[in-house]
Amino acid sequence: MATLREDLSRIIPDPERIITDNIDRKYLSDQLGRKQGHAEALVFTISTEEVSGVLQYAYAHGIAVTPRGAGTNLVGSTVPQKGGIILDLSRMNRILELDEDTFTVTVEPGILLRDLQAFVESKGFFYPPDPGEKEASIGGNISTNAGGMRAVKYGVTRDYVRGLELVTADGTVMTVGTKNVKDTTGLPLKHLVIGAEGTLAVITKCILRLIPKPETTVSVLVSFSDLKTGIGSVIRILRANADPVAVEFMERNVVALGESYAGIKYPETPNGAKPAESYILLSFDGSSEDVAQKVERVRRLALENGALDYLPLWDPQQAAEIWAVRGALVKAVEAVSEQEPIDLVVPIDRSEEFIRFVNELSARTGMQMISFGHAGDGNVHLCVVRGDRDEETWERELDANLTELYSRTYEIGGLISGEHGLGIAKRKYFFKETAAANVAWMNRIKDALDPRHILNDRISYIR
Amino acid sequence: MATLREDLSRIIPDPERIITDNIDRKYLSDQLGRKQGHAEALVFTISTEEVSGVLQYAYAHGIAVTPRGAGTNLVGSTVPQKGGIILDLSRMNRILELDEDTFTVTVEPGILLRDLQAFVESKGFFYPPDPGEKEASIGGNISTNAGGMRAVKYGVTRDYVRGLELVTADGTVMTVGTKNVKDTTGLPLKHLVIGAEGTLAVITKCILRLIPKPETTVSVLVSFSDLKTGIGSVIRILRANADPVAVEFMERNVVALGESYAGIKYPETPNGAKPAESYILLSFDGSSEDVAQKVERVRRLALENGALDYLPLWDPQQAAEIWAVRGALVKAVEAVSEQEPIDLVVPIDRSEEFIRFVNELSARTGMQMISFGHAGDGNVHLCVVRGDRDEETWERELDANLTELYSRTYEIGGLISGEHGLGIAKRKYFFKETAAANVAWMNRIKDALDPRHILNDRISYIR
Repeated sequence: MATLREDLSRIIPDPERIITDNIDRKYLSDQLGRKQGHAEALVFTISTEEVSGVLQYAYAHGIAVTPRGAGTNLVGSTVPQKGGIILDLSRMNRILELDEDTFTVTVEPGILLRDLQAFVESKGFFYPPDPGEKEASIGGNISTNAGGMRAVKYGVTRDYVRGLELVTADGTVMTVGTKNVKDTTGLPLKHLVIGAEGTLAVITKCILRLIPKPETTVSVLVSFSDLKTGIGSVIRILRANADPVAVEFMERNVVALGESYAGIKYPETPNGAKPAESYILLSFDGSSEDVAQKVERVRRLALENGALDYLPLWDPQQAAEIWAVRGALVKAVEAVSEQEPIDLVVPIDRSEEFIRFVNELSARTGMQMISFGHAGDGNVHLCVVRGDRDEETWERELDANLTELYSRTYEIGGLISGEHGLGIAKRKYFFKETAAANVAWMNRIKDALDPRHILNDRISYIR
Repeated sequence: MATLREDLSRIIPDPERIITDNIDRKYLSDQLGRKQGHAEALVFTISTEEVSGVLQYAYAHGIAVTPRGAGTNLVGSTVPQKGGIILDLSRMNRILELDEDTFTVTVEPGILLRDLQAFVESKGFFYPPDPGEKEASIGGNISTNAGGMRAVKYGVTRDYVRGLELVTADGTVMTVGTKNVKDTTGLPLKHLVIGAEGTLAVITKCILRLIPKPETTVSVLVSFSDLKTGIGSVIRILRANADPVAVEFMERNVVALGESYAGIKYPETPNGAKPAESYILLSFDGSSEDVAQKVERVRRLALENGALDYLPLWDPQQAAEIWAVRGALVKAVEAVSEQEPIDLVVPIDRSEEFIRFVNELSARTGMQMISFGHAGDGNVHLCVVRGDRDEETWERELDANLTELYSRTYEIGGLISGEHGLGIAKRKYFFKETAAANVAWMNRIKDALDPRHILNDRISYIR
């Protein structure tokens, strides 16, 4: 495509930042690399002006554009299905301003979560959203409204986005939101774009809200003889005015995988107690007195509600190790087999029943499913394990299992995704379970804001 | 309009709930009663089916519909400018479900904030949003994304809306959101409707998020010799990890108005100290130990930063009285004169400079402006006082003052409304200061979702 390359080079002066031949396969897929798209060009923009130039050009010519950040998504959102241009924003990763008086940091969308967190913490501030994937870009976090571990106390990415600079499908640069805390001035465009999976606009700048860095954080590992008792205690803990930051659940057999992968052993339950079959991993933050008080308050509650052991991890090294096992679960699974990552949500009080259903389904269909997740907000992660299935069998059996899984999810009032998004992987199940009126509104909005359907088309909710 | 009445009576069986003659003027205006609209019918619906029936009918015939709850809005959002039907939802005010396990309450939109708060608190729960107007309906709170006193710690109404049942312009019933905590399944339609001032859909059911009721709340009155020192201390307090619930500021001359209206005197500063010229009113919540610790932490900080006095209000009766004066400010002004209520926002660190500007402007133009507000989030309330101006003079001088006020607001990065909305009162200034791209997106969305423009048309952002 000599012409395309020439045209793009009028927008992006540096030839090294325009690739039209032999595009690396990683840019044609997502983190899992399951599906491959195709593209005529891959560009690395370094400014809002360049992004605007590329979109003006693409819009005028009806060329599809697939924006991407760090490419860590798990649902195929960055698979360029309609060809065209891949717009890579990973080099737009600067910190533009720390405004200590308004508690905001302004960054480019390509900055990695890890780098953002480290920077603001070094300045005495804190960016609470904490999805497991620290190598994700902030633009991606915003586009999926990423959640993560600390959502129980602090909420999700949406709650920390004060403002965005966007480039719309036709190349117009637009700012939505500001450094102000409150805003009731017309339709909340900022909120429409958060979680929209790059289908409405490209994010080129992010004003993020910070809070003061908590003085202390302490985690507690609570052991239970079974999952039901463990998850059953969560609602009581949430009602106890102890304001936990994170409330994770793990079954023993899942922890065992993480332990052997990470080379770390969880402590045994005390002499005479039954062995742990499930764990709740909690954390609390605040002043040290306040944290100590919360830890004691929940101790009483947990022991009254059937905990075998209640182990505050005062030693930061030990806490880090216990969390490392939690953090290693997905990688532990992937070391053994390909897996399909699921991040469905159910109302908190249905979690235990749902995980029992998952275990039954798994036993019945022979498809291994490893479950763990955010018990404090009903966000259940599952790894559906391929094992040694051939491609055709895997696709068929996975689909049969997911169909059943998601249909039960919706039956009990849940949703197909809490944080990963729909991408291309979940479209089918989403359309099956979502009311036509909702899908119609989404598509009318897409048609209104990107009438030529150039931005990340054919993913997510788009018919 | 015999035909309209007949048609409506096929949807609403009870004749008493359809008014077509002599519609009470209060239904043709907002709380302030400044502007009057006109209407062919006023209906009191009592079910989603009736709302849907009315909208189907209105949509088919291109009849304008103005939804309203308790009618406490201050910006003319409930003025039926295009005639048609006034859809009163105030009788849909039932509590449908308290779900203690998912921490949600499901209510109809007409329930008053006061009644909702009392109900959930009687059950050990807490609904944090706390706008000054407790007689407002929850539907109205959601439509303006109401903020209020406790936003510093707890955020605004948006943060407590889990799900909504809506009726769209053409009468379709649609549910957006669920009881789940997280959701990344397609465009966030719920968030688009929150704060949309009734221009996109009518809310018929609300699933609201609750938290456990805080154990203790303690307020502190801090006196300063001048506003600059007072507001200057706020950012330091916000950075101190003391997590205040509310941070209000008041100037002495404003408090004096409230005092004489409420018949309550604020304590004098200690012997030997200068008299207070401004106050910061704080509150903290949590366990009693935690609150005591925060109160002491901020005491040190306030005294180091120039406070004349720091008075924790341990006695709930005294606290109630101090807050009563704060709560009475608007009524105290209104007892003397008509006033225009302003609720602009500025970045927190610009508040003091902005209020100085307001005072200068007021001195220069002779237009009295009473300022107070939410120092913790930069939400400045102003009462612009009419005094004895005749209608024509008042309109002209008010406009001149507002033009200058809002132009400075935007200049320093602020916004025209933090919680009241645009309604009809602020449209003009909004269009003047808002980028064309943003207004265009808003109007494209309106066109897409209400193509016949029947819902609350000609208000807010709508061209």
